[in-house]
Amino acid sequence: MKSLEELIEVKRDGGTHTADELQRLVSAFVSGEMPDYQMAAWLMAAFIRGLDSAETAALTEAMARSGRMVDLSSIPGVKVDKHSTGGVGDTTTLVLAPLVASCGVPVAKMSGRGLGFTGGTLDKLESIPGFTVTLEPDDFLSQVRDVGLAVIGQSPDVDPADKKMYALRDVTATVPSIPLIVGSIISKKVAGGADAIVLDVKVGSGAFMKTEADARALAAELARVGELLGRTVVCILTDMDQPLGRAVGNALEVREAIATLKGEGPADLTELCLVLGAKMLVLGGIAEEEREARDLLLDSIATGRALDTFRAWVQAQGGDERVADDVSLLPIGAHTRAVAAEAAGWIAGFDAEGVGRAAMATGAGRARKEDDIDPSAGLELEVKVGQRVEAGDTLATLYASDAALLDEAEVRLRNAVRIGTEAVEPPPLFLEA
Amino acid sequence: MKSLEELIEVKRDGGTHTADELQRLVSAFVSGEMPDYQMAAWLMAAFIRGLDSAETAALTEAMARSGRMVDLSSIPGVKVDKHSTGGVGDTTTLVLAPLVASCGVPVAKMSGRGLGFTGGTLDKLESIPGFTVTLEPDDFLSQVRDVGLAVIGQSPDVDPADKKMYALRDVTATVPSIPLIVGSIISKKVAGGADAIVLDVKVGSGAFMKTEADARALAAELARVGELLGRTVVCILTDMDQPLGRAVGNALEVREAIATLKGEGPADLTELCLVLGAKMLVLGGIAEEEREARDLLLDSIATGRALDTFRAWVQAQGGDERVADDVSLLPIGAHTRAVAAEAAGWIAGFDAEGVGRAAMATGAGRARKEDDIDPSAGLELEVKVGQRVEAGDTLATLYASDAALLDEAEVRLRNAVRIGTEAVEPPPLFLEA
Repeated sequence: MKSLEELIEVKRDGGTHTADELQRLVSAFVSGEMPDYQMAAWLMAAFIRGLDSAETAALTEAMARSGRMVDLSSIPGVKVDKHSTGGVGDTTTLVLAPLVASCGVPVAKMSGRGLGFTGGTLDKLESIPGFTVTLEPDDFLSQVRDVGLAVIGQSPDVDPADKKMYALRDVTATVPSIPLIVGSIISKKVAGGADAIVLDVKVGSGAFMKTEADARALAAELARVGELLGRTVVCILTDMDQPLGRAVGNALEVREAIATLKGEGPADLTELCLVLGAKMLVLGGIAEEEREARDLLLDSIATGRALDTFRAWVQAQGGDERVADDVSLLPIGAHTRAVAAEAAGWIAGFDAEGVGRAAMATGAGRARKEDDIDPSAGLELEVKVGQRVEAGDTLATLYASDAALLDEAEVRLRNAVRIGTEAVEPPPLFLEA
Repeated sequence: MKSLEELIEVKRDGGTHTADELQRLVSAFVSGEMPDYQMAAWLMAAFIRGLDSAETAALTEAMARSGRMVDLSSIPGVKVDKHSTGGVGDTTTLVLAPLVASCGVPVAKMSGRGLGFTGGTLDKLESIPGFTVTLEPDDFLSQVRDVGLAVIGQSPDVDPADKKMYALRDVTATVPSIPLIVGSIISKKVAGGADAIVLDVKVGSGAFMKTEADARALAAELARVGELLGRTVVCILTDMDQPLGRAVGNALEVREAIATLKGEGPADLTELCLVLGAKMLVLGGIAEEEREARDLLLDSIATGRALDTFRAWVQAQGGDERVADDVSLLPIGAHTRAVAAEAAGWIAGFDAEGVGRAAMATGAGRARKEDDIDPSAGLELEVKVGQRVEAGDTLATLYASDAALLDEAEVRLRNAVRIGTEAVEPPPLFLEA
């Protein structure tokens, strides 16, 4: 058997690993036999030399099997999970989970807290008074059977390899590697019990993948590796050069999700949820093709079934379900500021990362794992790319609990909005759907 | 200023570091600000992407300056140091140091203990009863001024970057990288105060560099980087497909060194010391050219001045200088075994590493840093490549304190000597001198 050093040499010299070798690397790393510095050397070699699809599939499977595998077999139907590759102000899970559940696709989702501009899905849900993201495994499964959906925090004993590896990649400049990203995403979904996966790959300044070519390569590899592991993986590519929807912040995004479930949400967020939801319904065997699936989703919104499911979900997880009908029950920053355009022109573009940093400056995100999040803070954009603005028009409204935070947030927001002197075409939402 | 992650990204993506960036990497690593796992990722990126000569020189200088710089300016003359890139049974320092000192080149050497088949130079010296390798810095300098030479252990506060980096490279498969090897060798010599350096690059199965092409590339880069740092570096390439001299073991090598200083040593060891010594005399300004320098060295051996210097040196460092005239005062394994050829033929070659492992099996080396070494153990080869042997001729004599060790050592030795049925040309000692 090769030593760990010899396994590192294989990839260092551009060789191809066997499935057994990748299994051994992952289990030695998780058990602590392989120290961080050896895995860091291997990760850098893998980053530079690459992994082929068979290697990536073997790595992914080893990661998925590194801890407890969630068994969803007691839930009838095809279990379809959805994942977005990160972005700013992404409210889709809050809308999609109850929307597809209301149409009969069971949603048994483990979600992350995320370190970034705003909280992760868990933080957003916790901004609903009383909502808990901690459920015992049995309660999680019975809630999915009874209500149609449940969303909980990622359990530390599911895919521990991914948690440990991601933390190391984060500090060793080995994050933006397609095989390593694929391993991280798919292993979590496989360990979480998904039969099929819909992936929303974001492209642009606010996303992991800065170029369309990179995003297409990632999407292709996600599908290939999913297939090698016996999972159907469907990808769409969406533009993240401007934030999705209008809200960036935790309770503000819940508010926006509720509006969307009522059919009153921003056009781009609504459309993305319909496209992703239609694919989930087809994969889940609820509809034959996407046109039909889309009609089912629209009908669920129009008849109020989508919002009913949201209400039942919130109640099942201990939250105040009345927020569905009265969003003023959600926390909202006591101090607001309207940021007005200083000159007329056209919205030429956003630095989506800069918008995220502005939201973070209001208190909506966390810079370090141990930081607290302010659920009531954030911002609402009032403009989209291509829109004409006059001097004095509001670009965004900022919300904060502490008025002292508004100045830095305003500066960051102004720097993140580019206003030009010529008309601009609105960009397409989808690069591929 | 770039973060440490951003510095790793530079090399990951094949970029070129500024001198300031390399300085920052080295100082952050030595201070502990940069953890092992980050340096491991950078080392792997540097291994795969390479460093150009200017980067290697900047890395080397930063490493040399990471701790105390030895100041040899109080010693008159050009300070010339010598280094071998590792090999089996390398006794050259024991011969060269007193030999060139007897001709007027001051030798102020810090040496290593080494983890390997036999001890390092320090272990060999300590096999002389009473010899100490621990001297206070002032005593070290005054001994060089008075006696002409001193050899001590590497001080932990000199070039700490190399010690820390080497330990990490050893476990992350990043040792055999030319720029990293150059940095390690030259930084130690620069920190040790050398003005000029003679390097003996070993090639073959017993050495770091397995092929002549690799060894030539290493030699060229050593010279280039030395020049960029204002040091004259001269390299020779020697064959290590068979061990140098006959002795492999600590006291056995001291015994061989004494014979060589008397003009009675093995031909290959003698010749190598004359070639290296001549270059040191020229660099030290003692001779104009190598022919003249060689004559000075031969004269010193013939007149006994070389051995006188050895005697004075041993006495100055507390050792029993009578060993120079009576080698029976050196420890020698109580149990010996002559390993005889089983069939007639020609010595076709050695697995030099295998010979080293045979010596280690007698107790002459250490597998782990904390292991004890038996100064009296080892082996003496009785044959060289190309030599004709008859069945029953002695191939080697093994020495051990514990007779139980001889069986494994004999098996390892037999496996390391290849006897063929056809005549073989003796290989050249020098590939380039």
